[in-house]
Amino acid sequence: MKKHNFSAGPCILPQEVLKKASEAILNFNNGGLSLIEISHRSAPFVEVMENARSLALELLGLENKGYSALFLQGGASLEFLMVPYNLMKEGGKAAYLDTGTWSSAAIKEAKLLGNVEVVASSKDKNYNYIPKNFTIPSDVDYFHCTSNNTIYGTQIKEFPTTDGLLVCDMSSDIFSRQLDFSKFDLIYAGAQKNMGPAGTTLVVVKDSILGKTGRTIPSMLNYQVHISKDSMYNTPAVYAVYVSMLTLQWLKDLGGISAIEKINEAKAALLYNEIDNNPLFTGTAAKEDRSNMNVTFLLNDESLKARFDGMWKDAGISGINGHRSVGGYRASIYNALPLESVQVLVDIMQQLNK
Amino acid sequence: MKKHNFSAGPCILPQEVLKKASEAILNFNNGGLSLIEISHRSAPFVEVMENARSLALELLGLENKGYSALFLQGGASLEFLMVPYNLMKEGGKAAYLDTGTWSSAAIKEAKLLGNVEVVASSKDKNYNYIPKNFTIPSDVDYFHCTSNNTIYGTQIKEFPTTDGLLVCDMSSDIFSRQLDFSKFDLIYAGAQKNMGPAGTTLVVVKDSILGKTGRTIPSMLNYQVHISKDSMYNTPAVYAVYVSMLTLQWLKDLGGISAIEKINEAKAALLYNEIDNNPLFTGTAAKEDRSNMNVTFLLNDESLKARFDGMWKDAGISGINGHRSVGGYRASIYNALPLESVQVLVDIMQQLNK
Repeated sequence: MKKHNFSAGPCILPQEVLKKASEAILNFNNGGLSLIEISHRSAPFVEVMENARSLALELLGLENKGYSALFLQGGASLEFLMVPYNLMKEGGKAAYLDTGTWSSAAIKEAKLLGNVEVVASSKDKNYNYIPKNFTIPSDVDYFHCTSNNTIYGTQIKEFPTTDGLLVCDMSSDIFSRQLDFSKFDLIYAGAQKNMGPAGTTLVVVKDSILGKTGRTIPSMLNYQVHISKDSMYNTPAVYAVYVSMLTLQWLKDLGGISAIEKINEAKAALLYNEIDNNPLFTGTAAKEDRSNMNVTFLLNDESLKARFDGMWKDAGISGINGHRSVGGYRASIYNALPLESVQVLVDIMQQLNK
Repeated sequence: MKKHNFSAGPCILPQEVLKKASEAILNFNNGGLSLIEISHRSAPFVEVMENARSLALELLGLENKGYSALFLQGGASLEFLMVPYNLMKEGGKAAYLDTGTWSSAAIKEAKLLGNVEVVASSKDKNYNYIPKNFTIPSDVDYFHCTSNNTIYGTQIKEFPTTDGLLVCDMSSDIFSRQLDFSKFDLIYAGAQKNMGPAGTTLVVVKDSILGKTGRTIPSMLNYQVHISKDSMYNTPAVYAVYVSMLTLQWLKDLGGISAIEKINEAKAALLYNEIDNNPLFTGTAAKEDRSNMNVTFLLNDESLKARFDGMWKDAGISGINGHRSVGGYRASIYNALPLESVQVLVDIMQQLNK
C-alpha cells in the first residue's frame, strides 16, 4: 500500500531522490565503489559538495551577492551557539523573538555569550501566534527569529526590519516559499525537512558580516574557517550532503522555489479549508500566522478519536500525531509531500463527518 | 572488475553492510518508508540508536562499567573542543602528546580553554615515530593522545599511565585491536574508518568524570546533556548511526575485536614483510611504531612510478596515493579490507621487482 508520510521531520523526500540515494550506496557514479567509502577529498565528492553549495545559493537567488553556503554538522542546535559566537560582539547585545521551543533553545545558548533581549514572546498562548508590532533596539548586533515553528504550526509572514543583522532559523520552511533572501544576513537550516536527511545543516551567510566580534572563536564554530576551506575544514557528512544535493537538484528541475510554493499553497489551502469547514476539527494556530508546512489541528470530540485514527492508519497515513506540547494532530506537508496525500487525509476527515 | 579500496577514510565498509544500508534507503524494516524519512523519535530508530550504543560498549568490553556511549556530530574536530570544555577545570591544565596533524589540531583547540603542556612531539622527524619516555605532570586534569596517525602510519602500542584522566582520539584504529579499554576515561572516534560513514562520532566516556570543571558548558558541547537524552538531545545523524550499527553488528558476528585483530595483524604482516624484503620500497614509519591500519611507504626509484601506478590501477586498486605531508604511498588496511586485497597489492610489488 502506498504510504502517505506526514512526518514532522526527518520527513518525506522525493521518491526519485531516494532511488538515486539508494543506488549511490552500492555504486556511486558507476565508479564501482559506494559513495560512503570514498575519500571526501576525491574529485567526485568535491563536485557533490560544490554542486550542493551552488544549488543552495542559486535557489535562494543569492548567487554572486557576497554570500557563502556551508554544509556543516550539529544541526540547528549547534547554530544556536555558532550564531552568537560569530555575530555578537564582546559585550554586545542581540535581540531574539521567542516563538517556541526552538527559539527558546537559541536564546538559552546566546545568553552564554552576552546580552540577549527577548523582544517579544507568544508563550502566553502556548506559542499559537506570531508576535507583531514589537520594537527591536537599535543597538543590537543582530535580531534572531525562527521562520516556521514546527511544533505549533505557525510561520512568520512578514519579517521585521532591524538596524542590526537579520538572522533566521529556517530549518522547517527553507526552500518552500519565495522571500527576498537578500534581506537576511545569515540563514541556517537543519537539512531534515525540505532539504535532505538528518546530519547536515545549511548555513548561508553574508561574508562581509564575519570577523567583527573581537572574539577568539574555536575552529569548528567559526564560519570563516569553514568558508576558507570550502565547507571541508573537516570531513563533512558526506551522505547527507549528497542527498541534499539531489533534493536541491530535484527542486531546481521542478522550477525552483516559486514552483514549489504554488504547490505548497494548494496543499495548505486544501487542508486548512477542510479544518475550517468541518465542524469536527479546529485549527490550533492563529489564522493569519498559519504555517504552510505544519498544519496543527484538534479533533473536537475525543470519542471519535479511535475511529479517526483507525481510518487514517488504514489509508496508509503516518506521522500525523500532534507534538505532546500541543496535542491533537499535526500534518506536515513539506515540499516532497504530494497533493494526493493531502487529498487522502481530507477525504478521511470528510468521511468522519458523515 | 573487483575494486580493492585502500582509501584512508572515509574508507571501505563490509559489502553486506552496504547492501543492507542501500535497502534501508528505499524500505526500512519493511515499513514501506525510507530510514531517512521517518522520525528519529519513532520506535524503529530509537531501537537503532540503542543498539548502536550498546554494541559499541559491548565490543569494547565496557558494558556495566560506568561508561556511556554517544553518537554525536562534528567529527573528531569538534571533540578537540568538547574534551577540554568537559574535562579541563577552570584554571586547570592538560597534557597532550603531539604525534601529528590531528594531535596538533586538538592541542590548538584545548589552548583556547586553558593551560596545555605538550609533553612530547615527534615533529622533529615529520612524525614518523611515537615519542616515548616522556613525563606527564602529576597535576594535569587529563592526558590526551592520538592512538593511530593515519597520515604518518604510526600507532601507539603502549599507552602511558597518568595521574590525570586518560583521553584518547581513536578515530583511525578503534575496534581494530584489543586493548584494556577500561584504562581510558574518554575515547572518541569519527566513524569513517572502522565504524561507518562520515557524519557521526562515537564518544565513550566514564560517567563519573563529568561535571567537575566548574565551567558553564554550551548544551551541544556538554557530554552530560547528551547522556541525559540518550544521545538524542537533538536530531542525530540518523543514517550514519544506522550504518555504524550495522558495521558494529558485522564485527560482533565475526567474533568481535579479538577476531578482527588477528586478521588485521595478518594483513599488516603481509604488507610490511613485502616492504622490508623488496629492495624497491622503503617504509616511512619507525618499525616499532608501525600502524596496523595505515601502511606508509616510498618507491625508492621515482622512474618506476608510472609503471607501478599503472599496475595497481589496472588491478582495480584505489586510494593508495600517500598524503601530501609524507609523499609516496599509503595503503589503509582497515577492518573491512579483505586479506585478498592486500595480496593483490603485494603481488604487484613483487612483479615490479622482476
